[in-house]
Amino acid sequence: MKTSHYFLPILKDPPSEASTISHRWMLQSGMVQSTVSGIYTWLPLGLRVLQKIQTIIRQEQNAIGAIEMLAPTLQPAALWQESGRYDDYGLEMLRVKDRHERELVYGPTAEEVFVDVVRRCVQSYKALPLNLYNIQWKFRDEIRPRFGVMRGREFLMKDGYSFDLTEKASKETYCNVFRSYMKAFYRMGLSVIPLRATTGPIGGDFSHEFHVIAQTGESTLYYDAELENREVSRFEVSDFEKLYAMVDEKHLPEECSLPLEQLKISKGIEVGHIFHFGDKYSAPMKAHIFSKEGILVDLQMGSYGIGVSRLVGAVIEAFHDASGPQWPLSIAPFSFGLIHLQETVESEAMHLYTKLKDLGIETLWEDRPFSPGEKFALMDMIGLPFQAIVSEKNHKNNQIEVKIRKTGERFCFSLDQFFDWAMLKCAEQVSLPDMVKKSNM
Amino acid sequence: MKTSHYFLPILKDPPSEASTISHRWMLQSGMVQSTVSGIYTWLPLGLRVLQKIQTIIRQEQNAIGAIEMLAPTLQPAALWQESGRYDDYGLEMLRVKDRHERELVYGPTAEEVFVDVVRRCVQSYKALPLNLYNIQWKFRDEIRPRFGVMRGREFLMKDGYSFDLTEKASKETYCNVFRSYMKAFYRMGLSVIPLRATTGPIGGDFSHEFHVIAQTGESTLYYDAELENREVSRFEVSDFEKLYAMVDEKHLPEECSLPLEQLKISKGIEVGHIFHFGDKYSAPMKAHIFSKEGILVDLQMGSYGIGVSRLVGAVIEAFHDASGPQWPLSIAPFSFGLIHLQETVESEAMHLYTKLKDLGIETLWEDRPFSPGEKFALMDMIGLPFQAIVSEKNHKNNQIEVKIRKTGERFCFSLDQFFDWAMLKCAEQVSLPDMVKKSNM
Repeated sequence: MKTSHYFLPILKDPPSEASTISHRWMLQSGMVQSTVSGIYTWLPLGLRVLQKIQTIIRQEQNAIGAIEMLAPTLQPAALWQESGRYDDYGLEMLRVKDRHERELVYGPTAEEVFVDVVRRCVQSYKALPLNLYNIQWKFRDEIRPRFGVMRGREFLMKDGYSFDLTEKASKETYCNVFRSYMKAFYRMGLSVIPLRATTGPIGGDFSHEFHVIAQTGESTLYYDAELENREVSRFEVSDFEKLYAMVDEKHLPEECSLPLEQLKISKGIEVGHIFHFGDKYSAPMKAHIFSKEGILVDLQMGSYGIGVSRLVGAVIEAFHDASGPQWPLSIAPFSFGLIHLQETVESEAMHLYTKLKDLGIETLWEDRPFSPGEKFALMDMIGLPFQAIVSEKNHKNNQIEVKIRKTGERFCFSLDQFFDWAMLKCAEQVSLPDMVKKSNM
Repeated sequence: MKTSHYFLPILKDPPSEASTISHRWMLQSGMVQSTVSGIYTWLPLGLRVLQKIQTIIRQEQNAIGAIEMLAPTLQPAALWQESGRYDDYGLEMLRVKDRHERELVYGPTAEEVFVDVVRRCVQSYKALPLNLYNIQWKFRDEIRPRFGVMRGREFLMKDGYSFDLTEKASKETYCNVFRSYMKAFYRMGLSVIPLRATTGPIGGDFSHEFHVIAQTGESTLYYDAELENREVSRFEVSDFEKLYAMVDEKHLPEECSLPLEQLKISKGIEVGHIFHFGDKYSAPMKAHIFSKEGILVDLQMGSYGIGVSRLVGAVIEAFHDASGPQWPLSIAPFSFGLIHLQETVESEAMHLYTKLKDLGIETLWEDRPFSPGEKFALMDMIGLPFQAIVSEKNHKNNQIEVKIRKTGERFCFSLDQFFDWAMLKCAEQVSLPDMVKKSNM
């Protein structure tokens, strides 16, 4: 993409409304714009990150056999009355009457809708297990929306719901989703700590939260230092059960047997939450089926959420410096930023741009007539993983300079070396949905 | 995908609530479920079609330089008061007060939000032209929702908005979008008639509707028979201007100079609508910029909509028989349906399934222990373009039988021939977003 043909409305100065680092950079680098308190319009750059995060989540969900579907944003209030949750949510749930005075709610979550689907469709144990998910906009009317998309009111959530015949099978499903979450976060470049959590208004017998470690987190985490090892993505759930990890309201010093030097205390941002709740919804909503033995049993359920739009902010909180975000490659809006320092080498930049595009490497070329300083500042603020710099001097030596955004390192490559290196580096790039056809021919 | 691991809740009998053919088949073949009047949950099979239609639209929009972003579903009422449309929509627009008594509306369209984004970001003519779009859920509180997803209340719409400096440039953009729409519909296998239309509550000086020809259409179309030629997708807009085509409210027999034998009268389903409206929104909302000459001018605008969820129903209305839908390949939920007629050839079916998957051909294998008759009926009802049939008899002859859903033709292939043929046939298959990574490595 050429910036001259793109819509990249960056702000010169940090916006006064920004309360956190990610909020600042998302506004300043043209990722989102606030439409009204806690409700954002996703500008092209921000939407690319949001779509890539969705793609990773989809792939990891599908890999464990979860099936994607899509619940509506507006749900009948009657379903919430049936489950008994209509009053639990209080003012946070947006309620609206339609023109026939029938009450609808803007779903803050979708347990009821999924239970309703399954109870109407599934009569026999033969259809089980079922693990269904969707990625859909939700609404929670936060009394004080803040931190940009991290505590917005309209937010994108991946929410999944599993239906099993027995508690044992249901807990196995829970463990599968747990692992798929760790894998998805790992692929996004994140170190995520899973912790035992309280169940809150979703209810249930046990539950884990997934937190990105970041100074600006709202929760305090107490956990075994070993959990900061990135290899945790390979752990089994039973391994996690052996390691101490608690959010503040569950941490009791007298029950923690960890040696003090191994107890880490950090701030965290919750990006995922999973619940096992047995028949909490299936019993009141009569979602039961006949077992092999002909006995009517309530379905065993779990629910599994990832804050998709919140993740965009959380990643910035985890990865940034004074100049802007530092996007992990897999979810970066583009893999490469391309700049040319003199007008005399514009055609060389054009050549590079075309070749990178042909290789399927997503590249943003700053082709507008700005000064080198302005171009460097823009690329740092956008935070793409790699910057390719074309200059008269390098061109004379048949070289391309590359800057690694995260480390600031700079390398010079010959053209051939450069394309080999770029291909190798970008193998983990996740593509956008509109790029499917070309690559799948 | 194996049906034993899928969620495909088909209904034995036509549901009594179904009012049209597409409504019937979408419910019966497990594509959607009604959650409450006019609001649907998209089941896995239906969502696949919806996603593929989105992919085609994205590709064709991006191909003309339109840029994707995403407006929120809930919009501040203040923006609608500013444009003067707050009262135009009446009861059809869903209005809700948040916990602080601030009024929000569930967007039935998003002209105001896009104008707001652009006026806050764009000060100079240098940033133009801009053609921005999004694919987002919309809500219109239809007094009597009917025809399933074709006149639902919550519906998925692609809506785009263009911003140009001059009327001439703006009309060129309009023509580009017109062509991209024809191309997108063509890729979906549809014959679509573009017609001059009235502008309604969106307003503007001229406008075209795009209609799929179908018996169950709500509009009557009067048009030159030449427009039924599928090659119209290659026409320029000026070609269309020469051919007569009017929706009923604009058709005046005395003004139509077509010879009667060339005048076609058909029912049509509106699936797209584009508007050119100059400064209708930019003037009241003060979206103006400085031209090259330093003069403050109001932006020239157009808006462009495709009913994405409605298209799913419209395609069924256009392509079906007594057994169910007949999906065009590019938007079919899967390209191939695979069945084996005897348990003895299950391992051969497994082999075929694995090989088709490896080739990137989306295949649904009915691997549950149903009778051949049940399997055939299921596959016809799901409407996948191709059915691959594995039987003892064919297996003995090292052959595979293929049935073309649309024509009922059957062919026998050797295994090698079969895979070559399938690869060739499925070149137009559009993949789902979760399949990107694998194919783009």
